[in-house]
Amino acid sequence: MADTPAARPLTADDLVDLEELKRLKYRYLRCIDLKRFDDLVDVLTPDCVASYSGGAYHYDGRDAIIAFLRDSMGAETFHSSHRCHHPEIDVTGADTATGVWALDDVVILTDWELTIRGSAYYTDEYVRTPDGWRIHRTGYRRIYEETLPRASVPGLKLTASWWATDGRSELPA
Amino acid sequence: MADTPAARPLTADDLVDLEELKRLKYRYLRCIDLKRFDDLVDVLTPDCVASYSGGAYHYDGRDAIIAFLRDSMGAETFHSSHRCHHPEIDVTGADTATGVWALDDVVILTDWELTIRGSAYYTDEYVRTPDGWRIHRTGYRRIYEETLPRASVPGLKLTASWWATDGRSELPA
Amino acid sequence: MADTPAARPLTADDLVDLEELKRLKYRYLRCIDLKRFDDLVDVLTPDCVASYSGGAYHYDGRDAIIAFLRDSMGAETFHSSHRCHHPEIDVTGADTATGVWALDDVVILTDWELTIRGSAYYTDEYVRTPDGWRIHRTGYRRIYEETLPRASVPGLKLTASWWATDGRSELPA
Repeated sequence: MADTPAARPLTADDLVDLEELKRLKYRYLRCIDLKRFDDLVDVLTPDCVASYSGGAYHYDGRDAIIAFLRDSMGAETFHSSHRCHHPEIDVTGADTATGVWALDDVVILTDWELTIRGSAYYTDEYVRTPDGWRIHRTGYRRIYEETLPRASVPGLKLTASWWATDGRSELPA
Repeated sequence: MADTPAARPLTADDLVDLEELKRLKYRYLRCIDLKRFDDLVDVLTPDCVASYSGGAYHYDGRDAIIAFLRDSMGAETFHSSHRCHHPEIDVTGADTATGVWALDDVVILTDWELTIRGSAYYTDEYVRTPDGWRIHRTGYRRIYEETLPRASVPGLKLTASWWATDGRSELPA
Repeated sequence: MADTPAARPLTADDLVDLEELKRLKYRYLRCIDLKRFDDLVDVLTPDCVASYSGGAYHYDGRDAIIAFLRDSMGAETFHSSHRCHHPEIDVTGADTATGVWALDDVVILTDWELTIRGSAYYTDEYVRTPDGWRIHRTGYRRIYEETLPRASVPGLKLTASWWATDGRSELPA
């Protein structure tokens, strides 16, 4: 977790790297929420390490990470919105960078009738490969997380789903 | 929906366009949530097409889009927070660009005692005009959407409103 | 609140300033949510003015602002996620800038068994000092704010906390 401002003054040359690194993170998150797990092969390094939720879910290597994500988030009854904000990215060398991000996430499991909501801070490491920037280490620590049994709220109703309703709302215009 | 990284390497010259395109989107969203519908004339092209919620709400032309937004969101009992994240923008030509954005939105209708929450992915097309970038096509597909009858949660209470309390909280400091 | 597009065309030279100003805001928000109040000394000007929640909470001077934040948000039973989005930043002079930001925030007070959720628009002023950009004026006006007594939702449960569980979820993988 960064405790200080950027280690060196930001230059115009850094800005292309920063935009590419942000976009890498956005692609990672889009692949997860839209269940495009195969596409993560081009986002993570082969020896990437992930340590989610304060280390509660720890995986070594791209294959193990993708298998975890697919197993835990692959069902079409699993609706997730992982949103990262507030990038504080430092290019630390010719081919290395670090990043701190805020996370907010909502997960709705319609088969378990459960909502999980939370907030966290991510700490990442990135490396530049011949094919572009990749995530080399990633992990977050929760500010909070809470679970809501959906049956506790009478009338709470899902009115759209990427998978069950083709992304279309059932509400009238 | 973008399936791949940027079509060509990002250059420093692109960065001004990217910032302007992000700002265009932020202006569009601010005009909606603050009910400045007239200002959308400078945000959308005259022949803009909008296809919201997987096509459930489809409008051809700027006038039709603005009329829909004003009719559905104009009341001061309609409180909305539409937030776009994770821009993956490609400048595709001298005067054209595409964008993918994540959306989270919360709507509180105090007269209907209803909350609507959701998440989606936007796919946009932009064109550069003599007056700057404009949105030419826009639309999103829901990951999820849910409705909550507010009376189902005893004690759930609105404590501030841009319109009803002049944006000021009724909570003590 | 900005009513118009940027006052002058954006240049490539502005982009480093914009990135530094965004990062300043992200640091401010991270210091608040992670309770690093001492670090705010390097984020705010000594004569900074803060006017939160439509003026309901108004503080003159950095010391008064930090004291307010520490007093109201310092307890480890206070879990907050303040997220700023949609920056519309104008560099208005050699050493001055203004910014408009959207805010979404969630606060969970476990000792009060209360959740506060809201949305707002921030209007900021920044000044460049010999040590970098600082926040000189800041304040927001609510779109909405609501309070939820957590006991009203049977089964609603905190499953992680930065402070109580070391940021680790109690949920199985």
